[in-house]
Amino acid sequence: MTPIVLGIDIGGTNTVFGIVDEHGACLADGTIPTRAQEPVEHFLPRLFDATEHLLEPFAATHALKSVGIGAPNANYYTGTVEHPPNLNWQGVTPLAASIRERFGVPTALTNDANAAALGEGLYGAARGMKNFMVITLGTGLGSGIVVNGDVLYGADGFAGELGHVTASGVQGASNLMLTGRQCGCGRRGCLETYVSATGICRTAFELVAELSTETVMASGVRAFTFETLSAAELARLAHSGDALANEAFKRTGTVLGVSMANAVAAFSPEAIIFFGGLANAGDLILRPTQAAFDAHVLTIFKGTTKLMFSALMSSNAAVLGASALAWKEVA
Amino acid sequence: MTPIVLGIDIGGTNTVFGIVDEHGACLADGTIPTRAQEPVEHFLPRLFDATEHLLEPFAATHALKSVGIGAPNANYYTGTVEHPPNLNWQGVTPLAASIRERFGVPTALTNDANAAALGEGLYGAARGMKNFMVITLGTGLGSGIVVNGDVLYGADGFAGELGHVTASGVQGASNLMLTGRQCGCGRRGCLETYVSATGICRTAFELVAELSTETVMASGVRAFTFETLSAAELARLAHSGDALANEAFKRTGTVLGVSMANAVAAFSPEAIIFFGGLANAGDLILRPTQAAFDAHVLTIFKGTTKLMFSALMSSNAAVLGASALAWKEVA
Repeated sequence: MTPIVLGIDIGGTNTVFGIVDEHGACLADGTIPTRAQEPVEHFLPRLFDATEHLLEPFAATHALKSVGIGAPNANYYTGTVEHPPNLNWQGVTPLAASIRERFGVPTALTNDANAAALGEGLYGAARGMKNFMVITLGTGLGSGIVVNGDVLYGADGFAGELGHVTASGVQGASNLMLTGRQCGCGRRGCLETYVSATGICRTAFELVAELSTETVMASGVRAFTFETLSAAELARLAHSGDALANEAFKRTGTVLGVSMANAVAAFSPEAIIFFGGLANAGDLILRPTQAAFDAHVLTIFKGTTKLMFSALMSSNAAVLGASALAWKEVA
Repeated sequence: MTPIVLGIDIGGTNTVFGIVDEHGACLADGTIPTRAQEPVEHFLPRLFDATEHLLEPFAATHALKSVGIGAPNANYYTGTVEHPPNLNWQGVTPLAASIRERFGVPTALTNDANAAALGEGLYGAARGMKNFMVITLGTGLGSGIVVNGDVLYGADGFAGELGHVTASGVQGASNLMLTGRQCGCGRRGCLETYVSATGICRTAFELVAELSTETVMASGVRAFTFETLSAAELARLAHSGDALANEAFKRTGTVLGVSMANAVAAFSPEAIIFFGGLANAGDLILRPTQAAFDAHVLTIFKGTTKLMFSALMSSNAAVLGASALAWKEVA
């Protein structure tokens, strides 16, 4: 019987899952709509049906060893999903216990950024590293931080939320208010309001207000509403020479680079690995990030931390991340 | 033979050392001037003379198990002191090796904030905790961060420098410059330029410029030069009702509280423990810190992290911290 694990990633729109072997090969995968408005009691039977159907052809030849799940607001310690902001799951859901009961194998749960970090460590750009960070640049900014070979969970299981470290800061001692953009968390100035697929669109709209009318009229951004603009559209415009779009990448990368220099002072990782929608822009985002990082990192850390892209961006990274968590449970 | 360790703390002004038993009792201690302008080749013989003299009476009845050292710019991994900014020690000094050779026992080296964290964990306010932070508020701001029971050293041994995380921040995407106070590290806006025994004096001088002439004339701060002002003098003034001095504590605590809320998003510790000159001000600093912390900490972390003072402030904490490192080496 060949050992396999089941990796599941629950997103706000889709839930993806796959069967992964010990070498990181995805033998089969599938997707169901998450239906965010649906209570978890309706979601679970659909998930069980779909994953059991996927596993069926492997029953005679392969042995399911464990299940790993990436989910929003997931607590590794308790195996629960707690008050997810983008899902209509009430209160605290004991998701790992429900799945463990159904499949009869060890089951673990963590958030998507931590799963991405585990995947990167087992199969990707961080193989062999014991101290590294994965930054996911999607709708928000997530972070999976690995310290001494283990994901940083902290005292309560929720550590590593760098997206909600304030980037705009306390403006000196003279100004006691937190300034900056409003964040979904209820505060202002959080890093993810500047640096994420959403944040760069906010910056593009700020630039429409700030730059000269000529620059704005010459920019393709004027054809977009906030609904239709995306990081991918901005990248397309920037590649075609659009000055406003290029400035949006420059400013976003600068905030990211300074923030990562701060993170290095705290964590001193071997590498910081970028992943997700905004990372797909490649050099457009990495060049200004690296420049700001080099300019602001403390002297003692200069040259020690590499900024790089995920090695899993073209593959089913979310499933691989969840499967890395699963393999860790049976290691 | 009763087991003992030798704890040494090398400061910019004085080097203190002590003999500590397994229960954390300091059986004997001593001090020599560090003489910052002196090369390490002159310092070491003086340190050996003084510590051997201290150990002599214990030779027949006690067994020296190990030596622990707290020192500036100390690298735990390599046992070296690297380019210390306040000592005239050239380049990289293999301090742990020199001391190991002299005493013939395991010898370890870390910076003073990490030693303080180990001391707090073994003997102080963090006993039984596996995730906590110690913030030392002296000339600068140091941090010792414990993750899963171990000090966070990162990839290169220098992790945990929260004093050099920018507090003044990148001011939104519209302003790409780091703003804020100049720091000794060559950058601007570092946390320790606001929150430290020195930082609060800078804030007091900023307030002299900012507040009304009446407030300034009514303040005892007008009697001080920047040379003679200290956190202790400011605390004395604040206790006597000085409005400017009280405002200095309020602003300093606010920056500290917001910064600690950010640190909790990253680390999710059980407790943050304050230590050092500025912490001696007690409620004057803790009250505004707690208020800003409560207002700015992410909802999911509310109520999980305690802010508290070191339990070792009245004792020989630096020696106890270094001795905790020493005991860890023989554990």
